[in-house]
Amino acid sequence: MDFTTIRPATRLTVDSLRAYGREAFVQAGLPEDGAAIITEVQLESSLRGQPTHNVGDIPGYCRRVRAGQMNPRPNIRSVKTTAVSARIDGDNGPGQWVSVVATREAIARAKESGVGIVGVQHSNHFGAAGHYAWMIQQEGLIGMATTNGGLVLAPWGGVSPTFGNNPLGVGIPAGRHLPIVLDIAMSVVAQGKIGLAIAEGKPIPLGWMMDKRGRLSTDPKDASEGMGVPIAEHKGYGLTLVMETLSGLLTGAKFCLDHNRETFRGGAQEHDLGHFFLAMSPEMFMSTDDFKGRVDRMIDDVKKSELAEGVKEVLLPGEPEMRSRERNLREGVPILPSTLKRLLDYKKEAGLTTELVEVGAA
Amino acid sequence: MDFTTIRPATRLTVDSLRAYGREAFVQAGLPEDGAAIITEVQLESSLRGQPTHNVGDIPGYCRRVRAGQMNPRPNIRSVKTTAVSARIDGDNGPGQWVSVVATREAIARAKESGVGIVGVQHSNHFGAAGHYAWMIQQEGLIGMATTNGGLVLAPWGGVSPTFGNNPLGVGIPAGRHLPIVLDIAMSVVAQGKIGLAIAEGKPIPLGWMMDKRGRLSTDPKDASEGMGVPIAEHKGYGLTLVMETLSGLLTGAKFCLDHNRETFRGGAQEHDLGHFFLAMSPEMFMSTDDFKGRVDRMIDDVKKSELAEGVKEVLLPGEPEMRSRERNLREGVPILPSTLKRLLDYKKEAGLTTELVEVGAA
Repeated sequence: MDFTTIRPATRLTVDSLRAYGREAFVQAGLPEDGAAIITEVQLESSLRGQPTHNVGDIPGYCRRVRAGQMNPRPNIRSVKTTAVSARIDGDNGPGQWVSVVATREAIARAKESGVGIVGVQHSNHFGAAGHYAWMIQQEGLIGMATTNGGLVLAPWGGVSPTFGNNPLGVGIPAGRHLPIVLDIAMSVVAQGKIGLAIAEGKPIPLGWMMDKRGRLSTDPKDASEGMGVPIAEHKGYGLTLVMETLSGLLTGAKFCLDHNRETFRGGAQEHDLGHFFLAMSPEMFMSTDDFKGRVDRMIDDVKKSELAEGVKEVLLPGEPEMRSRERNLREGVPILPSTLKRLLDYKKEAGLTTELVEVGAA
Repeated sequence: MDFTTIRPATRLTVDSLRAYGREAFVQAGLPEDGAAIITEVQLESSLRGQPTHNVGDIPGYCRRVRAGQMNPRPNIRSVKTTAVSARIDGDNGPGQWVSVVATREAIARAKESGVGIVGVQHSNHFGAAGHYAWMIQQEGLIGMATTNGGLVLAPWGGVSPTFGNNPLGVGIPAGRHLPIVLDIAMSVVAQGKIGLAIAEGKPIPLGWMMDKRGRLSTDPKDASEGMGVPIAEHKGYGLTLVMETLSGLLTGAKFCLDHNRETFRGGAQEHDLGHFFLAMSPEMFMSTDDFKGRVDRMIDDVKKSELAEGVKEVLLPGEPEMRSRERNLREGVPILPSTLKRLLDYKKEAGLTTELVEVGAA
């Protein structure tokens, strides 16, 4: 399923979405700074045109806060630090908030010492991994972010979900060109896209999901008992395990079977997810300008490639998203019908006053 | 093609292979310490049962030294250092030698400062990425190694080879269990395996290689003009580009179209490959014992998985190789017929005196 072919019902103004998110989080019990941070992370995802991990998740996060499952006023604190690292306890706060704090810590250390490595425990879903990598590259640093999550992937050869889909975000600053921002789940598709396909009434494409016996399935009924398909077979399994090690093991968070699938389906138990952020300064090796010049030259080389049949343009990781961001900042944020319904339903449920303002059909 | 189904012609003694490698490199002009280091890297790969990047490559390396294309007595030196990093100039020395020096630098910094990041330029093919990750984990650290290389992979949507297959090695120390050692090329298979299939007279499996128009091919004739297939489609392309950034851009080495395919086919030009090594101490976050205990628990969780149909056992990355290593240390090193021929041909060509001693058929 190509989400770009779904005609967005609506383009909403950036300002009204931002106001909606902030009101929703404050009304759920968050202070204004936390509400603003989380809203911005989710809004940036919508601006990049990501069909999931975007403003459509705001109602769900607010409900978890209101149900007492996520701490609206966390004491986010370092429990162990060195010149190049910090281990942060998120105090069961919203993952985006905890992660923005952690990313800033990684950036500060990289600027001071060349590298900053920050691990987080006692956190919750942090949205899109690419966001934090993007934040880091904005500072002229190479950035990496990963997380563990609800159990989605089995080890290769097995059929027991044991890992999250453990996305990896990498950000690389360029000079003349748009930055490179890679954001990839270790499953063939993010779980959210399977949920979205179901919500939008679309079939689930073959290759996205397996049933509980590990056979490929397109049947939405298999979504809850089944599992994701790792990228690149055993190689994706290996990468998943590396991401679990960095985000779950090294940070003191829960990992693997510490998690259980029910917890992530509305259970009251704290999720205790772990995240991992790394920021690295090119200045350890050469001037930042020289490095960015070399990134530009790599991008030039990529753009020189002859095209495969039927391909119009070779793109860099994140290039479509960065282009969407520029366009959507000008023209408004495209919102899918199922996402708009979710936002309006929650507005009613929570008694929010912010009006979502339409710019006009896309 | 499953290399495990090829019956090795011969098991040779570890000692005779070690003596062969050392004699070959010294005779080609290397000092004894360099000869010993390179031999050990290639021998470890044979011990792990890797069908490529092993002792079979020793003749090729020696010929490049004798042809004046690789420096047998390099001045391997740091050109820029910080408490957590070093940029090393390999002086066109053999990649294994340069990389063992670089890996030791990364380990020393990680033990002192928590993390060590070492970039290398002016190097040559370093053998198997997993070796250096394995070295790092032996010190109780998390290790990562990557490199760029001769042009094998095109950007996604393009058909011009622009990247190496840029393998990633990751090493994770365990407690009770064997260490986790991931070693994956960003192409579906390492180029060496395609060469080996041709050398062994086996067909090239579908999905391993594309022709110069980017169409999947099984025809050995397409190997020289064609290209590799990236793992996981656009995701593998993105990861390839990240590895190129770390190993090629950040280090000051040649990258992308700085390389050309002819250089890597016997041309006299210096390769100027770049490598990247990262060592990270768990002590930044918790005691090494606690960390290793958590790794053991992850491995236990993986081993608890129910099995997919037809699967006998779930394995960790590197587990088959670590088991092979233990067995081959006891029983001798299995050598494929084409590899044995290569070693014996070179013995004659170079007038080596070391006898390769057979333990007996496998």
